Amino acid sequence: RYGNNPFIKAWQLDNEYGCHDTIISYSDVARAAFQEWLTDRYGDVEALNTAWGNVFWSMEYDRFDQIDLPNLTVTEPNPAHVMAFRRFSSDQVVKFNRVQVNVLRAATDVPLIHNYMGRILDFDHFEVGEDLDIASWDSYPIGFLSDRLEGDDDHKAAFLQQGDPDMQAFHHDLYRAVGKGRWWVMEQQPGPVNWAPYNPAPLDGMVRLWSWEAIAHGAEVVSYFRWRQAPFAQEQMHAGLLRPDDTPAAGMEEAAQVAQEIATLGPLVQVQADVALIFDYPSDWAWNTMPQGADFDYFRLIFSAYRALRRAGLSIDIIPSTQRNFDGYKLVFAPGLANTDPTLMSDLRDSDALAVLGPRTATVTDELSIPPQTQPVITGLDVNIELSESFPPSHIRSVEGGGSVVHWMEKLSGSSPVLMKTEGGATVLTGDDQMWYLGSWPDETLWNRLVGMAATQAGLHTTALPDGLRLRTAGAVQFAFNYSAHSVSWNDQVFDACSVTAWDRQDRILK
Amino acid sequence: RYGNNPFIKAWQLDNEYGCHDTIISYSDVARAAFQEWLTDRYGDVEALNTAWGNVFWSMEYDRFDQIDLPNLTVTEPNPAHVMAFRRFSSDQVVKFNRVQVNVLRAATDVPLIHNYMGRILDFDHFEVGEDLDIASWDSYPIGFLSDRLEGDDDHKAAFLQQGDPDMQAFHHDLYRAVGKGRWWVMEQQPGPVNWAPYNPAPLDGMVRLWSWEAIAHGAEVVSYFRWRQAPFAQEQMHAGLLRPDDTPAAGMEEAAQVAQEIATLGPLVQVQADVALIFDYPSDWAWNTMPQGADFDYFRLIFSAYRALRRAGLSIDIIPSTQRNFDGYKLVFAPGLANTDPTLMSDLRDSDALAVLGPRTATVTDELSIPPQTQPVITGLDVNIELSESFPPSHIRSVEGGGSVVHWMEKLSGSSPVLMKTEGGATVLTGDDQMWYLGSWPDETLWNRLVGMAATQAGLHTTALPDGLRLRTAGAVQFAFNYSAHSVSWNDQVFDACSVTAWDRQDRILK
Amino acid sequence: RYGNNPFIKAWQLDNEYGCHDTIISYSDVARAAFQEWLTDRYGDVEALNTAWGNVFWSMEYDRFDQIDLPNLTVTEPNPAHVMAFRRFSSDQVVKFNRVQVNVLRAATDVPLIHNYMGRILDFDHFEVGEDLDIASWDSYPIGFLSDRLEGDDDHKAAFLQQGDPDMQAFHHDLYRAVGKGRWWVMEQQPGPVNWAPYNPAPLDGMVRLWSWEAIAHGAEVVSYFRWRQAPFAQEQMHAGLLRPDDTPAAGMEEAAQVAQEIATLGPLVQVQADVALIFDYPSDWAWNTMPQGADFDYFRLIFSAYRALRRAGLSIDIIPSTQRNFDGYKLVFAPGLANTDPTLMSDLRDSDALAVLGPRTATVTDELSIPPQTQPVITGLDVNIELSESFPPSHIRSVEGGGSVVHWMEKLSGSSPVLMKTEGGATVLTGDDQMWYLGSWPDETLWNRLVGMAATQAGLHTTALPDGLRLRTAGAVQFAFNYSAHSVSWNDQVFDACSVTAWDRQDRILK
Repeated sequence: RYGNNPFIKAWQLDNEYGCHDTIISYSDVARAAFQEWLTDRYGDVEALNTAWGNVFWSMEYDRFDQIDLPNLTVTEPNPAHVMAFRRFSSDQVVKFNRVQVNVLRAATDVPLIHNYMGRILDFDHFEVGEDLDIASWDSYPIGFLSDRLEGDDDHKAAFLQQGDPDMQAFHHDLYRAVGKGRWWVMEQQPGPVNWAPYNPAPLDGMVRLWSWEAIAHGAEVVSYFRWRQAPFAQEQMHAGLLRPDDTPAAGMEEAAQVAQEIATLGPLVQVQADVALIFDYPSDWAWNTMPQGADFDYFRLIFSAYRALRRAGLSIDIIPSTQRNFDGYKLVFAPGLANTDPTLMSDLRDSDALAVLGPRTATVTDELSIPPQTQPVITGLDVNIELSESFPPSHIRSVEGGGSVVHWMEKLSGSSPVLMKTEGGATVLTGDDQMWYLGSWPDETLWNRLVGMAATQAGLHTTALPDGLRLRTAGAVQFAFNYSAHSVSWNDQVFDACSVTAWDRQDRILK
Repeated sequence: RYGNNPFIKAWQLDNEYGCHDTIISYSDVARAAFQEWLTDRYGDVEALNTAWGNVFWSMEYDRFDQIDLPNLTVTEPNPAHVMAFRRFSSDQVVKFNRVQVNVLRAATDVPLIHNYMGRILDFDHFEVGEDLDIASWDSYPIGFLSDRLEGDDDHKAAFLQQGDPDMQAFHHDLYRAVGKGRWWVMEQQPGPVNWAPYNPAPLDGMVRLWSWEAIAHGAEVVSYFRWRQAPFAQEQMHAGLLRPDDTPAAGMEEAAQVAQEIATLGPLVQVQADVALIFDYPSDWAWNTMPQGADFDYFRLIFSAYRALRRAGLSIDIIPSTQRNFDGYKLVFAPGLANTDPTLMSDLRDSDALAVLGPRTATVTDELSIPPQTQPVITGLDVNIELSESFPPSHIRSVEGGGSVVHWMEKLSGSSPVLMKTEGGATVLTGDDQMWYLGSWPDETLWNRLVGMAATQAGLHTTALPDGLRLRTAGAVQFAFNYSAHSVSWNDQVFDACSVTAWDRQDRILK
Repeated sequence: RYGNNPFIKAWQLDNEYGCHDTIISYSDVARAAFQEWLTDRYGDVEALNTAWGNVFWSMEYDRFDQIDLPNLTVTEPNPAHVMAFRRFSSDQVVKFNRVQVNVLRAATDVPLIHNYMGRILDFDHFEVGEDLDIASWDSYPIGFLSDRLEGDDDHKAAFLQQGDPDMQAFHHDLYRAVGKGRWWVMEQQPGPVNWAPYNPAPLDGMVRLWSWEAIAHGAEVVSYFRWRQAPFAQEQMHAGLLRPDDTPAAGMEEAAQVAQEIATLGPLVQVQADVALIFDYPSDWAWNTMPQGADFDYFRLIFSAYRALRRAGLSIDIIPSTQRNFDGYKLVFAPGLANTDPTLMSDLRDSDALAVLGPRTATVTDELSIPPQTQPVITGLDVNIELSESFPPSHIRSVEGGGSVVHWMEKLSGSSPVLMKTEGGATVLTGDDQMWYLGSWPDETLWNRLVGMAATQAGLHTTALPDGLRLRTAGAVQFAFNYSAHSVSWNDQVFDACSVTAWDRQDRILK
């Protein structure tokens, strides 16, 4: 009906895949589909038994239809079983999206879009993104800080009405990759919402800041949710640009200001960053299945690296683990990348970039078992993991020169040169001119030191930004976003609370 | 059989309606009854769709028998749906009680009583109370402090063996209203019980204090539970006035002392208080359904106001939201009164009392949606809510002159005079000579200031009582109860730990 | 098939009964079996009604097949009902084990063994042990510290990589009793495991320390789990003595060292200890069923006594509550022994040992009700419990002379001489030359004082060991184990971190 409507510029398929725990299903229907999926993947059940190591605990199956979903087991399920179920569940989303794509492609020529969420990792967004034209996401900075980010009380209090200074940028960079360069913000929070544990209002200036930050990271569109606040039903306390009586709400003025500023500034150019961070959904499933320590979480690890890069003032490209072209990158980080194929390692070694890998990178097979050869498998580095330790937050290990190891530490051996060690003498970082392996989870200070060392080796300039201030380069334009509730100083300049600043070469063009 | 037994002076119907989560039921039987109740209320399903705003999220129903109970939904249910279910559930209790009343009225002429519990709000006690002759309640000060009251660790430790200094008085005042003036304590804790997380013994003197406090608030009877401790089954560790071997337990002596003191003093007279506090069960259901902030709780809000009034030495009447006669009251408080009919506002304005309304008072319709007109609807005040914010306990906003806003703050606009504002300039309290609207949740200090301001305007004398000391006026007799575990001084007098003091005009008659 | 295989030296039946919550079952099959068990125990249902006090709350049954399992009740089930179910559940394990024993006895002459777990109390190990030849257990010091022991953060941090200094010894002593003198460690943790919340590596020396400690407590065998780390399935991150590629892991060297040291030292002799501690599984079920205070736990209480005895440098025998021969013991402790038969009291009084009983010892009947006579029933002591109090961790009561009462305090009366009282004058400890009754739960300091007083009266020498250092006498050999991560001094000697020391009379033979 709307296929050729000229006012339709793009089609959003479905809504927020994965929100409200909608990916993992333990229904009978899911079990049947999972058995089919396993039959396709393994062909015969003996191959599955071998791949999963089912000889352990007498878990061997005779037929595929004996295989239940990996829940309601007496102790715990086989991690290979869980991992297969996670892959299956992701594949179901890809197939479900494709069904909708096929229907719409036949009816319309406009771009197809889905609106992803923040920190939803239950399916592989890169695979869904392959079938769509534009990626988008729903950005709720205040709710996300409180309901899905680790952080100490001081951090959460300091950014209560602004959101975490790196959370939005991370997803902008992630979905730019998922959208192969084209992405929108589909839902931008314009005021207090209704669904977080607490729902304070954004500080004055934050709606503008969030909007400009998206644009600086390459968003083609920033759309606010919602246009008009509904006076009834579930979301009646969710602010819109208009209040229920059609009068403008607080966010409207800032949205209008951004629109005018965009018109004044003209289009921005996006350029490749110097630094790439590999993000891999199956790695999240792997470590979620087999965390080994209660607080080992892939997103948390990746995000701690991303934050450190941003504190150093760097702009970052997030790339999938399938990418093999590293031209133009000077630094590539891949913390926690569970399983890697050998070409990634050799291509990284052949690239001009310094690759910083680990912890846990390349330590398990595709079936979530320990590979036969020595691990991790870093081409050209003689490094072995003797054992891995996880430890509670109260336990830290100091590193020579400053900073500490937290959460996770591998006992590394081998002849690869030691680049960092604990005060007790244990290896933290090892490597050569092209590749480093990090066997530990660094705290903030140690991440700062590590990023500084890597940037120096890669010939990149870094800085030390004050808390809340973040930079982003968009072609010739340099942006600074101050997420702090107070003004901060950096580089002999003062940045107001909740402000956006931009320079075109020398000149300040936005304040 | 017992209908005309002359030793039966009153009949207790059932036991502690609502205790052990027995009101809300998600059974199939409940669903069928709910559908009937909805049919009665809305007549046709289109009216229900409109009233609930079911156009949102495509929730429209075609028939009443499609309407499930508001559980097991993918995201959350429509608040109007939940609110209807809460009203239905309360109505079921009223009906169930009435069935028993009808049976007993035919068999006996003695008064009918039910024993309510502490902080059970799942049904409208005022409606049940309409069908009965006397209200009563089961007062367990020590268990209630630990299992159903907010409070910081210091407070809970200070009153561990005495109970909260305001909890009993609140329920005495509440059930005096529910009983239309006639009420008992049906079960008074006489020693350690068995069911709280921890069960320490009352400090010496507390059984006497609790008993006298009930009498000072108008109780006709204080009955102790239990007479003799049972040596077996679930409650074998619940103290009685007698031990299992029929020897007197610790509480017996104090109970006997009270009996003797009552005989000496003669009957007390109850008089109307100067201050009324409106208590409304549906408001609890409303904010429980749509709290908007994780710790927004109606009872907690009401109780914070009650405590502040008591800290100022005031005696209080609790009244239902249906009351329209305010003769004799100088101050009426109505915090968090969700939905109000217009006559309440106009009758309050026409009364001689100063009405202090809000936060959240008169902000939703009967169907838990945002009313079309500007809100809150305070007759004669030009005040609008631009937006509402909830925030975590770590976040407070200082108010000019002392005290802070906690938990909740509305952004108020309109021409109504500002009476209090934050240090950031936001309106906290607004109003004229007859009606005030409070858009924020005050902390203790701010409540104290607010009560002081309101009392001054209303021509009431207030005091600042030390922690644990509370007053109650019963006609010409003035009582003081010291809940503290140590003696306190006030008004040039010393009050012993856990003591009761009473004056008849000038003379101390009870110590 | 393996019945006469000469390489089979013993048979392990099943694995870790009770691990993963496998004892208590609320299935339909369990209900039918429970009804049978009740029929056997009570004969007719009236006897059951009387025994359980079912007249309370109208719980009387007409027939055994009306009796459900004690779950899914509106409020709580009758404690007698729960207690019967706990006894039944334990009996089922005994029967299940016996079935396996009968099969194997017919096929083999080698000893039969089961491997018990740490702090699993859901069945009576003494009863299972009666049918077997050797007891064994699975010792995971690091995981057990974090997942099943109370302890403040400092304690848990200090022993993170060593385990609690008393947990292993306690189970060694317990299973020595269960095995009637013969016991093994079936699974000794040799490195980091996979199943605890966090899995750090043992500090250097701990594998040797754990091994030697077991031997010092009489273990015939210390077997490490596992021999080779599996590269797949659930336990792939569980260290073995060998790594997956067959190279030795960290624990191998220490295990080999212990083997060599054992060969050098020759066999040890086990002798009876001076101190006995009565351990009783049904007491755990009783207090678990009717804790009366949220943190009243039988193991926790027993373990607090055991720790205090160990801090004083004593070696301890754990004995069952059925033991009546106390020859050779100078001190017998029985905290929290719920139900006792009268012969225990009289035999204790007739023994040469000083018996220290309580809190809660001998306070309930076999059916978990309050006995008709005065309680506790301590032969020859005139002591009554007026009432019992439980209180939260924030509440303590200081005792004259030092230390405090925590968690639990009984109000004692009677003419028995007071040996300790609170600063408020309440009796803490009472008794005569043969028997003491302790009505309170002591904190560490108070336990230390109590053990010191009791040892002095019993003519035993005690010491005050530094944190982490523990002693064990094995015949003429005196062992010292330093669990601390640093060296400690005691008795003019220095003990290295994680070290084992042994003396044969004067000479240090192991360091």
